[in-house]
Amino acid sequence: MYKLRHLCLSQQCSFMAMTSLRLMRVMTKRASFSSSAVKWEGGVSMVQGASRGIGLEFVKQLLEKEKGHVIASCRNPNGATSLLHLKSKFAERLSILQLDVTNESTIEESAKSISEKYGSLNLLINASGILSIPQVLQPETTLRKVEKSSLLLAYEVNAVGPILVIKDGGGLGTERDVAVVANLSARVGSIGDNRLGGWHSYRASKSALNQLTKNISVEFARRKDPITCILLHPGTVDTDLSRPFQRNVPEDKLFTTEFSVQKLLSIIHNAKSHDNGKFFAWDGQEIPW
Amino acid sequence: MYKLRHLCLSQQCSFMAMTSLRLMRVMTKRASFSSSAVKWEGGVSMVQGASRGIGLEFVKQLLEKEKGHVIASCRNPNGATSLLHLKSKFAERLSILQLDVTNESTIEESAKSISEKYGSLNLLINASGILSIPQVLQPETTLRKVEKSSLLLAYEVNAVGPILVIKDGGGLGTERDVAVVANLSARVGSIGDNRLGGWHSYRASKSALNQLTKNISVEFARRKDPITCILLHPGTVDTDLSRPFQRNVPEDKLFTTEFSVQKLLSIIHNAKSHDNGKFFAWDGQEIPW
Repeated sequence: MYKLRHLCLSQQCSFMAMTSLRLMRVMTKRASFSSSAVKWEGGVSMVQGASRGIGLEFVKQLLEKEKGHVIASCRNPNGATSLLHLKSKFAERLSILQLDVTNESTIEESAKSISEKYGSLNLLINASGILSIPQVLQPETTLRKVEKSSLLLAYEVNAVGPILVIKDGGGLGTERDVAVVANLSARVGSIGDNRLGGWHSYRASKSALNQLTKNISVEFARRKDPITCILLHPGTVDTDLSRPFQRNVPEDKLFTTEFSVQKLLSIIHNAKSHDNGKFFAWDGQEIPW
Repeated sequence: MYKLRHLCLSQQCSFMAMTSLRLMRVMTKRASFSSSAVKWEGGVSMVQGASRGIGLEFVKQLLEKEKGHVIASCRNPNGATSLLHLKSKFAERLSILQLDVTNESTIEESAKSISEKYGSLNLLINASGILSIPQVLQPETTLRKVEKSSLLLAYEVNAVGPILVIKDGGGLGTERDVAVVANLSARVGSIGDNRLGGWHSYRASKSALNQLTKNISVEFARRKDPITCILLHPGTVDTDLSRPFQRNVPEDKLFTTEFSVQKLLSIIHNAKSHDNGKFFAWDGQEIPW
């Protein structure tokens, strides 16, 4: 420790990169050769915000089309009937955890439990997000309707939550083993692409999420951590989140969760280090900030 | 009212634009011809966050180099010795108001008081902002140091506060008379320009401020309100805010408040409607989102 403290910044970076690579190797070794290797075959993915909508569909496709283990987290596992149904089919490969992004202790507890059981993740998808809650949060059509409470709530859930999951997600230094972090953003979070206005709380929270994700991608790259952080716009997808706002969406622009997630998983699996810190739409096109 | 409710959106927009233009004319008329015209000669500017640093310098230059009336707001007017000193020199042209962006009732009370006394503003500068507070908020050097409380506090002060000032600032429908709204942002709020990482809470709050300001500019433009909203990066300026972080700033890149504010006022005074929703550095160059 004494030596480490006195390393210059570039030496520290090299040291951290070495440590990171070593951890990766340890993980690979354990995954391939240790007695508990079987359950990690195909890697370990975590989908945060997995009880419905896009998050649920990610879990479904990861289980049905791939081989790895999936950790699905949501606020209320007991009420997550679709997840429980998947659990009955994929008992060995699916773990369901309670995690509420607005409750930091649940994030920390999940991280601890994942770290103990799996050591590390190969993929983390932050899929939770809010746009509207009856009587509480409504996308603003004009500045006059903007409320402080709405701005803060959207920020806490859509921007702060996913970042704390990434921060705590690895716990005990293992976040460097995550291979891809994919944060669900939205095209309306783009400032350069903002031509319609409105939805102040949601837009601002997603712009902040974009900045925070970019920020983390810069840090991981500087440390030479083998993690690629990307932001994804799923398109307008037929989910509970978008349902109240689908009226003006042309039919061919309203995607099923199956279609959108298929496209997003393809982006995730093809992500290379030069994609680190980028913001992609469902069709692979980059979205301006 | 019955008719208005049944107007289609484009008719409503035309109606709002007409109302807005009418209000502008009323204001111009009052400013030029009414009995209380003298005190508005040169217009009315408000600087929010005016007790020190860049905000204070805006007040100083608006008073010393221009002719208009200035409303300076800050959290604690009794302790704002520099503002009180200016007040002793410019008693007739300077009003000092108590406003704390984290306390919505003070925003509403200021708006009411301004509306009653001046009717409307020609310029609103949101200059308040936080980067660090000893023992409370410290710019993060790494993801591990990111705390939920810091993310939320920076967001509340740097993004939510200025937006509520714009929302309530006009009160009673008069915000449409503001000619220029200038929000102090920062280059580190640019996502596209983020190459160093760090300062998570501050960066995210400024990115969100950028999005919210862009959003409002779109709304004003759609209503054909004659208000230009711009975002300004003052450079690295020798103030209390930047002082703990000036170590690596080359001497010729560390500006005095005098220099920076002179440049920013020139941008503000030259702002045209096609600048609405843009993000400018002190030298007039546009900054990417």
